[in-house]
Amino acid sequence: MSEEAPKEQSKSALKKAEKAAKMAADKAAKAAKQAALPVVGGKKAEEIMGITVSKAENFPAWYQEVVLKSEMVEYYQEISGFFVLRPLSMHIWSTIRKWFQQHIEEMGVEETSFPIFLSAKSLEKEKDHVEGFAPELAWVTKAGDKDLEVPVAIRPTSEAVMYPYYSKWIRSHRDLPLRLNQWNSVVRWEAKQTTPFLRTREFLWQEGHTAHLTEELAGEEALQILELYAGVYEQLLAVPVVRGRKTENEKFAGGYYTTTVEGYIPSNGRGIQGATSHCLGQNFSKMFDITVEDPANKGSHLHVWQNSWGLSTRVIGVMVMVHGDDKGLVLPPRIAKIQAIFIPIGINKNTTPEAKKKHEDTIEDIRATLKKAGVRTDADWREGYTIGWKFNDWELKGVPLRIEFGFKDAEKEVISFARRDTGEKGTIPISEVGTKVPELLETIQNDMYTKAEAAFREHRIQITKWEEVLPALDNKNVVLIPFCLDGKCEDRIKALTTREDNQPDVPENQKAPAMGMKSLCIPFEQPEGVVAGETECLNPECERKAQKWVMFGRSY
Amino acid sequence: MSEEAPKEQSKSALKKAEKAAKMAADKAAKAAKQAALPVVGGKKAEEIMGITVSKAENFPAWYQEVVLKSEMVEYYQEISGFFVLRPLSMHIWSTIRKWFQQHIEEMGVEETSFPIFLSAKSLEKEKDHVEGFAPELAWVTKAGDKDLEVPVAIRPTSEAVMYPYYSKWIRSHRDLPLRLNQWNSVVRWEAKQTTPFLRTREFLWQEGHTAHLTEELAGEEALQILELYAGVYEQLLAVPVVRGRKTENEKFAGGYYTTTVEGYIPSNGRGIQGATSHCLGQNFSKMFDITVEDPANKGSHLHVWQNSWGLSTRVIGVMVMVHGDDKGLVLPPRIAKIQAIFIPIGINKNTTPEAKKKHEDTIEDIRATLKKAGVRTDADWREGYTIGWKFNDWELKGVPLRIEFGFKDAEKEVISFARRDTGEKGTIPISEVGTKVPELLETIQNDMYTKAEAAFREHRIQITKWEEVLPALDNKNVVLIPFCLDGKCEDRIKALTTREDNQPDVPENQKAPAMGMKSLCIPFEQPEGVVAGETECLNPECERKAQKWVMFGRSY
Repeated sequence: MSEEAPKEQSKSALKKAEKAAKMAADKAAKAAKQAALPVVGGKKAEEIMGITVSKAENFPAWYQEVVLKSEMVEYYQEISGFFVLRPLSMHIWSTIRKWFQQHIEEMGVEETSFPIFLSAKSLEKEKDHVEGFAPELAWVTKAGDKDLEVPVAIRPTSEAVMYPYYSKWIRSHRDLPLRLNQWNSVVRWEAKQTTPFLRTREFLWQEGHTAHLTEELAGEEALQILELYAGVYEQLLAVPVVRGRKTENEKFAGGYYTTTVEGYIPSNGRGIQGATSHCLGQNFSKMFDITVEDPANKGSHLHVWQNSWGLSTRVIGVMVMVHGDDKGLVLPPRIAKIQAIFIPIGINKNTTPEAKKKHEDTIEDIRATLKKAGVRTDADWREGYTIGWKFNDWELKGVPLRIEFGFKDAEKEVISFARRDTGEKGTIPISEVGTKVPELLETIQNDMYTKAEAAFREHRIQITKWEEVLPALDNKNVVLIPFCLDGKCEDRIKALTTREDNQPDVPENQKAPAMGMKSLCIPFEQPEGVVAGETECLNPECERKAQKWVMFGRSY
Repeated sequence: MSEEAPKEQSKSALKKAEKAAKMAADKAAKAAKQAALPVVGGKKAEEIMGITVSKAENFPAWYQEVVLKSEMVEYYQEISGFFVLRPLSMHIWSTIRKWFQQHIEEMGVEETSFPIFLSAKSLEKEKDHVEGFAPELAWVTKAGDKDLEVPVAIRPTSEAVMYPYYSKWIRSHRDLPLRLNQWNSVVRWEAKQTTPFLRTREFLWQEGHTAHLTEELAGEEALQILELYAGVYEQLLAVPVVRGRKTENEKFAGGYYTTTVEGYIPSNGRGIQGATSHCLGQNFSKMFDITVEDPANKGSHLHVWQNSWGLSTRVIGVMVMVHGDDKGLVLPPRIAKIQAIFIPIGINKNTTPEAKKKHEDTIEDIRATLKKAGVRTDADWREGYTIGWKFNDWELKGVPLRIEFGFKDAEKEVISFARRDTGEKGTIPISEVGTKVPELLETIQNDMYTKAEAAFREHRIQITKWEEVLPALDNKNVVLIPFCLDGKCEDRIKALTTREDNQPDVPENQKAPAMGMKSLCIPFEQPEGVVAGETECLNPECERKAQKWVMFGRSY
C-alpha cells in the first residue's frame, strides 16, 4: 500500500528549518537545565520557549518548531529520519485508533498481527508491486554476530507478507469476505529529506487487507473505508477533505484503482494526500493464487477481488499544518488530550493558607463536575512561573480552552475562559459549567472545521482557461480542470506548469514556486460543465476531449 | 527488560511435535481445498481437523496442535521462529490491552512511541545491560542496495532507546514522575527452539518506563503494576499466579530488584514466569545521567529512581496450557471473541422455507437480546457440515458456551446449552436468556479460575526435608523451601536436582525428567515456619540459615 509523502519540497529550506528548530530547542533545554529551575519572570523563558518563526513567512520552519516545541515529537538524534511520538501526539493517534477500530469491527473486519519481516523469496513473487519499495527496504543481514543465511527485509507494507496465507486460508467462497486489519509500524528508508509525521523512515499506521467474491463487493467496501477516512479528518481532526479517485498515473502500483481523500494546506496552497483505499482487483490474487470455486458455476474457479487500505500518523501532520498559528498548535477538542486547562489566578505570598485551600477546592470541584460531563481537564499549579508564561505554554501546546480562575471569579461564581482558536473571551457561571463547557468545546470543534472548510472551498477553483492555471497556483489555489485522463497528458501538464528554477538574481524567499502541478484526484462530486467527449481537455497541447473535472495542484 | 521463555524443553520432542502439527494442518488444508467443499459427513473431516495428541501423553505436541488448529496462530513458513497471530488470539490481546491501558491511564501513565532502532552508539553506553541481549540482536546493515554507514539494531527492549530522552526531558523534580508506556513488538533472534507465544523471535508486548524522585515512590508503582499483571491473569485469563520477588540470580540484569507473578502448568508441573515489574533503582539513571536538583537539599543533585515493566503475548500461551483439553482450546468467557455459539438443529431438506425462516428469526431475536446483555455470539449456519462436525469445530476453538436450538427447543421455548469447560448441559427459558446467559458465563469464568487455582495450590508444596524434593518435582509439584537466598547456593540446588540424563535403555517418553529446579520467586505471602537466621537452609550442603520460604520448581 502506498503512503504518499511530500516529494518536492525545497530541500535546503527544510534542512535549514530543521536545523534551526533543533538548535532553538536544544538551547532552550540547556538553558532550563542550567537554571535548574525553569526561568522565572516570564520574559526570557518566553523568548526561548515560544515559536520564533511566523507561519506565513517560513512555513516549513514554523512547522518544525511547532511539532517540536509543543512536545508532539522529539528528533531521534541517534538515527536520522526517525522521531519519538510523545504523549500529546500519541493521544491523538489513540483516539483515531479507537474510533476507526470500532467502526471496522462493526463492519466485520478482524484484527491480526503478521510478522515484521519479509523473506527475499516472497518479494520475488510480486516483483512489480515491490519494485517501488525496493530502494527503501531495510535489510537485516546479521543476528548477534552471525550472518543470516538469507537476509530478511522489514515490511514497508504487508501484501507480500500476508497474501500467501490468504491463499492457504481461503478454501471456499464461504470463507469470503476475509477481512483483516493490523495496527503496526512500517519502515521505509527514505533517501529524501524527512519531516515529522509527513515523511519519516518509520511510521505508525493501520493496514487493512480484504478479499471478496465480486468486484462489486470489493468496491463497496473500498468506499465504506474511504468514508471512515474522511470521518477521521472531518469529524475528529476538523480538517476538510475531497473524496475522489486517483488517475492511472497516481494510483497504487499493482492495484486496480485507488480511492483517496485529499486535503489542502492553506499556507502554501498545496494539496496533500490524506489516506487511500485501494481496490486491488484480481492482480494480487493471480500472483498469489487466491481462488475459490465459483458458486454460480460449479467446477470452475475464480480469483478473489481484493482491497487494501491504510491510514497513518501523517494525519496528525496535516492537522497541525491546517490549524496551527504563530503561537503554536491549535488542537480540535475531540482529539485534545487536555481540552481545558485551569490557570489559578491571584495566589501569591500574601494569600492566606485558608484562602488558598478554598480556591484550590473550588477549582477541583469544578474539574470534578467537568470530568463527569466527559471533559478532559488539567490545572496548572506550577510554582515559579508567571501567569503570562503559563498562558504561552498552553497556547503553544494547543489546548482548546483556557480557564482562568481568580478570587474575583470566585466572588462572582463564574469562570473566565479564552478560546485557543479565536482568542475570544467570556465567562460561564460555575453552576452551568457541566453543560456550557461541553457545548463550547463542540462549538470550537465545529468552528475550526468550518473555517478550514471555507479556506479549502475558496481555494479550489474551477478553471477553464489554461492561462489562468499558473496565476491560480501562485495564489495558493488548487484547481479543478477539464481533463482527458490520459497519463501522458498528465505528465505534460506537470512539465508545462513547472517553472524553470533559474532566477539567480532573485532572493530565495522571493522566487516564485517552481513545482509543477500534479493530479490530486478525480472528485466524486463533479460540478456541471464537463460533457464527456465534448468539452476540450484543458492542456493546450492536448487534442483529446475531457472526461472529468480533475483536481490538480502543487502538492506534498 | 527481560522476558523469560522456556529454556530447557526437549528439542527433539518439540521439533517432532511441530512437524507433526504442521503436517496434519497442511494435510487438512489440502484435503479441504481438493474437495472444494469441506468434507461432508463428519467422520473424515473430524479425524483430520481435530486434535490428534492427548494433553497428558505428549504435552508439547498437544500444545502446538491446539494453537495451530484452533486458528490462534499460523506458522510463518518464510522465516522460522515467527508466527502470525490470527483474530482469535488478537482478540485476547486487544482485550488485555484495553483493560491494562485503562488502568495505567488512571494511574497517570502516558502513551508514547519510540523508534524501532537502536544505534550501536547508545548500545555501548549500557554495556552490562545489553550484554544479555547482544546475541539476539537483529542488525540492519543495508537500505535498498546501499550499505548503512552505521548498522542499527532492532530493539529487543527500549531502555537504551528511551533513557537518553529521559535525561533530556527531566529537568527538575517537578517533571517527576515521568511515566511512559508503549505497545509495540520487539525482536529477539532466539537461537533456541521457538514455541508459539512462549518463545518467538518477535512478540507483542507493552513496555512501561518510569522515573521517580524516591525509592519509595518507585517501589509503590512497581507493586501497583504487578497487581495489574496479576489481574490480567486472574481476572481475564482465569489463571492463578503467585506474587513475589525474584532472587538476585533471577532478577533483571542491570536492575535493582524484580517483582514477578509466577504461573504453574499442571500438565508437566512446571513453573512459568508470568510477567515482571522491575525497580531499576538508580543504575540506569547513573548510566544515562538522569538527575534533578534535590528538593530537600538545594544545590545538590540526585539520580532519579526508575522502573520498567512488561507484559507480552506470552500470557496467551500460559492460558492455553492451563485450560486446554484433548478437544482443543478452552477459553475463559471474558476474553473469548465468541462467548456463545448457536448451532441450529433439525433443518434439513424436508424443512419448509417458512419453518426455516421462522427458526432463523427466533435465533436472531435471541442473539439480539444477548447482544443487548453484552454477550458476544455467533450462529453457525454453514451448510454441508454435520452437527457433530460443528460441535467439534467450536470445541476446538474453545467457545465457552454452545447453544443448540432445534424445533423441539422452539416448541418448549428454551435453548439447550453445553458448557465447554465441564461439558455440563442444560436448558434456559428463552424469556430468561438476557440474565441467565451472562450469569452462566460468569459462572464458567469463576469455575475455570477456581479449578486452576486448586490445581496450583495442591501442587505448591511446603517441604522441609531435602529428600522429599525430587519426588515432589517428579509428582509435578513446585516446592516452597526454606532458603538462604545465596546465589551460589541457588546454583548448587539446581545442580543437585538435575538428573544425569544417561538412561540409554529407557524409552524417551518413560525417562524421568532431567531438569533441575530453579527459584521461581520469593512469595510475598510467607507461610509460618521459617525464622530468619534460625531455620536451616534446605540445601544439605549449605551451612547458612534460611531467610525466607522460596518457591522453586522445574520451569519454562
